[in-house]
Amino acid sequence: MEIFYSKDIEGGYLHLDEEESAHCVRVLRHRPGDEIAVTDGKGNLLWCTLTEASPKAAVARIERKQEGFGTHPYRLTLAVCPTKNNERYEWMAEKATEIAVDAIVPVIGDRSERKVFKTDRLKRLVLSAAKQSLKGVVPQVQEPVSVCDFIDAAPDGALKLIAYCFEGEKLSIKEALEQSPTSDVVVLIGPEGDFSAREVEKALKAGFKPVHLGDSRLRTETAAIASAMAVYLKYMD
Amino acid sequence: MEIFYSKDIEGGYLHLDEEESAHCVRVLRHRPGDEIAVTDGKGNLLWCTLTEASPKAAVARIERKQEGFGTHPYRLTLAVCPTKNNERYEWMAEKATEIAVDAIVPVIGDRSERKVFKTDRLKRLVLSAAKQSLKGVVPQVQEPVSVCDFIDAAPDGALKLIAYCFEGEKLSIKEALEQSPTSDVVVLIGPEGDFSAREVEKALKAGFKPVHLGDSRLRTETAAIASAMAVYLKYMD
Repeated sequence: MEIFYSKDIEGGYLHLDEEESAHCVRVLRHRPGDEIAVTDGKGNLLWCTLTEASPKAAVARIERKQEGFGTHPYRLTLAVCPTKNNERYEWMAEKATEIAVDAIVPVIGDRSERKVFKTDRLKRLVLSAAKQSLKGVVPQVQEPVSVCDFIDAAPDGALKLIAYCFEGEKLSIKEALEQSPTSDVVVLIGPEGDFSAREVEKALKAGFKPVHLGDSRLRTETAAIASAMAVYLKYMD
Repeated sequence: MEIFYSKDIEGGYLHLDEEESAHCVRVLRHRPGDEIAVTDGKGNLLWCTLTEASPKAAVARIERKQEGFGTHPYRLTLAVCPTKNNERYEWMAEKATEIAVDAIVPVIGDRSERKVFKTDRLKRLVLSAAKQSLKGVVPQVQEPVSVCDFIDAAPDGALKLIAYCFEGEKLSIKEALEQSPTSDVVVLIGPEGDFSAREVEKALKAGFKPVHLGDSRLRTETAAIASAMAVYLKYMD
């Protein structure tokens, strides 16, 4: 199954952008009258009839709407410090999208080696991963923010978890998830050099629970995926 | 912490190969008398004193042995069909090693696009991932084998799971793991084009349990990591 993506929906018709149009018409050779499936990125799958098979600006008529397509029964925000190697971060974002994530936030820590982070490329990558894995909702890639600012802005109602390396009383992420009544989860993952003491202190004051991810020493990007999997598995039937 | 790896251990002394020696002496500038930690790849961490700081053939005297280092309380074999894009397979092997895996078996399915697979590069990559993540045991990278031959050779005592896409009664991998008394787990993951009907039939006859990995559509390499995480989380305290 192939799904397209469009934000440009109006009066029972939708328009595909240039990239999507080219893929639909040039690559997949769809012609007027063909049925195509389009997600609006908000959890709706729109079954359409292609009316204008233009490789630059295809248009389709919406025939029916399937709600709650490619969604998951929880809300997960992954706030992850950029890795030194950008490919590892992109990989993390792709895999988190495949598994299920709602927001990816590049957070810059006191000990982050990379202080600058561009999101354009990551947004494109997340969109294509969402389409490839038939997600109805495209995860939000937020603009970079400092760890401290992220902590200040984190919602009170959510289960807020922070995974850091240095010593202290910690639950496993599995226990923390099992004990929690809320399905709104925020996980904060530090840089290769870990969080600073003041960042951890601030997080704990703000109600973040310190968690460990088991006995294995995981890289930053693997810790993020392990967290996404832990939440995914909690809700697996 | 930095650990080295040596198989060449005799009479209370060990030798590092050329690559390890260069890393120890040239890169990390260790000198005679320095304490270094070396794993034998079998779950033992050997605390040693460097006696010959040769950048081509370093030698160290074993002072004490720490058993059960960097091990995990289960045995996991991941039998995964090679992905079209080899990088994705290498990534899977690196991440599985970080999380915890005992054997990685490239299996060639009826519908595999890649029928040939070289393991040399993968073995080096797994070794360096094992060292980086402080594993005491280096996962075994086996030579490629057909899916059918792998099924024939799979141990009877193990919990044998097969994840395939087409319809049928399936437990979730989480349920299958929870129900199982054994800690010896084998997971068989198919190629992009899925297993053939005869492969699935053969696996079920051989006692493999069909499992699903939840509602998300996961790529081959992500399915393998999801399986490794499911086992890892079962044993997480």
